[in-house]
Amino acid sequence: MPKRLGRQTLLLTNRPIMTASAGVVGKKEGEGPLGKEFDRVFDDAHLGKESWEKAESAIHRCAVDLALKKARKSPDEVDLLLAGDLLNQCIGTTFGVMDFGIPFAGLYGACSTMALSLAMAALLVDCGAVNCAVASTSSHFCSAEKQFRLPLEYGGQRPPQAQWTATAAGAAVLEKGKEGAAVEGVTFGRITDYGVTDANNMGAAMAPAAARTIAEHLTQTGEAPADYDLILTGDLGAVGSRLLKELLQQEHGVDISCQQADCGMMLFDLDRQDVNAGGSGCGCSGAVVCTNIVRRLRQGELKRVLFVGTGALLSAVSARQGETIPCIAHAVVLSKH
Amino acid sequence: MPKRLGRQTLLLTNRPIMTASAGVVGKKEGEGPLGKEFDRVFDDAHLGKESWEKAESAIHRCAVDLALKKARKSPDEVDLLLAGDLLNQCIGTTFGVMDFGIPFAGLYGACSTMALSLAMAALLVDCGAVNCAVASTSSHFCSAEKQFRLPLEYGGQRPPQAQWTATAAGAAVLEKGKEGAAVEGVTFGRITDYGVTDANNMGAAMAPAAARTIAEHLTQTGEAPADYDLILTGDLGAVGSRLLKELLQQEHGVDISCQQADCGMMLFDLDRQDVNAGGSGCGCSGAVVCTNIVRRLRQGELKRVLFVGTGALLSAVSARQGETIPCIAHAVVLSKH
Repeated sequence: MPKRLGRQTLLLTNRPIMTASAGVVGKKEGEGPLGKEFDRVFDDAHLGKESWEKAESAIHRCAVDLALKKARKSPDEVDLLLAGDLLNQCIGTTFGVMDFGIPFAGLYGACSTMALSLAMAALLVDCGAVNCAVASTSSHFCSAEKQFRLPLEYGGQRPPQAQWTATAAGAAVLEKGKEGAAVEGVTFGRITDYGVTDANNMGAAMAPAAARTIAEHLTQTGEAPADYDLILTGDLGAVGSRLLKELLQQEHGVDISCQQADCGMMLFDLDRQDVNAGGSGCGCSGAVVCTNIVRRLRQGELKRVLFVGTGALLSAVSARQGETIPCIAHAVVLSKH
Repeated sequence: MPKRLGRQTLLLTNRPIMTASAGVVGKKEGEGPLGKEFDRVFDDAHLGKESWEKAESAIHRCAVDLALKKARKSPDEVDLLLAGDLLNQCIGTTFGVMDFGIPFAGLYGACSTMALSLAMAALLVDCGAVNCAVASTSSHFCSAEKQFRLPLEYGGQRPPQAQWTATAAGAAVLEKGKEGAAVEGVTFGRITDYGVTDANNMGAAMAPAAARTIAEHLTQTGEAPADYDLILTGDLGAVGSRLLKELLQQEHGVDISCQQADCGMMLFDLDRQDVNAGGSGCGCSGAVVCTNIVRRLRQGELKRVLFVGTGALLSAVSARQGETIPCIAHAVVLSKH
């Protein structure tokens, strides 16, 4: 049963385990530093489908399918699938997972969705509500650009602080008590808004939410950054990562410079791949956590990771109406088990 | 701790209680049969805001604020707010609730969101993960029409099977062990798609999902329709309600004609109010359940209600791409406690 450590943090005493996980990506992501880690790299951004949205559904479906196969589970053995994505009404998820016939709870946390779905799935496994859950998410560069910014055909310039939405999906199967990467704890974030209105600077918008959640997590658990091998944000990019470290130092007196890494900066080679400030999108942290991080935990290279999923809760409409960008960050403690 | 009754159904043994709830609506909803039940009726559809989206955020905020006031809770006493709405990236919710500073988990279930948020909140209270949760949702006729169909200024005709998105919001405070309407059980639905592509006929699209969830709930609990005073769908409207009863009778041999009612048909007077097949939108079932249904449970007029929230998981983009309308229904058992 989950044990409360303050208002937001829950210790999961039955250590729900990611018994299997999968990450699948597009061509550009496959050419990045983590290219060899992924279960599948799709060279065709369309995945043979007639729209970007349908391609995103296909990549989402593929990640869930591979995670289930690795876990040797049929969809009938899964009690609940918790998932979401960036597209309006989360159609990347819905059309991606509908054929599995798994009971489904839709989530919306923008790019924090992998952390949110892992948190919810782990909680429900921990308390015995479900025996087996799947947490998943996806994003697609082309569907996201079309929806949030401009059609690709327009050829709009991207400022250096902009991030590159990853074409990627991640899925994890969670169950009790077997070997793998455990979800040890969860800290739910609060919506945080420092007044940033530039939808091309998500890193700056999301950094304060990440700083707040990390500070609250450390306070409620009584831990220090050194209790983690890695404090992994997903995804602040280069601008947001720098701001996060400054904010934590200045506002909370916490130094995470030795532990912090960012999924969006791990996925791409920023010098070589023309992705400006780094990767973003639900699928970025989804695919990185479900492959590289899980592997390193299993192999003992990492012992404890604080995965902090960060989401910008704007829409194209709210941006056009001049609204600020409210953001959220959820933290999940992953450990070797 | 939740007790599993089959794959999808959970019995909540600690009976999380809706200790307070609130429903707020627009003018047209206030003129309907339930007008006197609501905590507040806004005559101005703009709620003094400069956009429909901001008006929806304001109505969402109002419902949460009133529910908290009735529960005599400050936002600081709430451990988690679970909420969502129909707008792209759920901005009705985000901008509505952000100032409360409550830890937040975003959900997307289209019009099933009140059932999904109640289910999740009740589960987390039941297992002790949170002491106090808020479940809430909203919809606004004008923001929904603009996003899913046509701008109001266009004056588009609506076919008789179309439903009317309610301008409404509902919020409930859930805690353990006090007096009120209890959440006794939860059945998570599966995405169901009978191939309906007419986005003006949501009732027909959603009825099969409702039928499936009701049939699965009754099978897993070993119950009959007569075990409920009310099997309350939200919202199938006139067309969907008729189809639901036919489907359950023909495909499952289950007759719910004596128990079934629909929030969308309760909210409006279909003969008098020009809403075609009845109300819809997250806020419709949100406001009806959080006022009329909770009151009748508290007063003993109703003893057990199976609330079946139904959602159409389409987007304007998927509809324009000729996709079918995948739907979902989540069931929540409400009882007097």
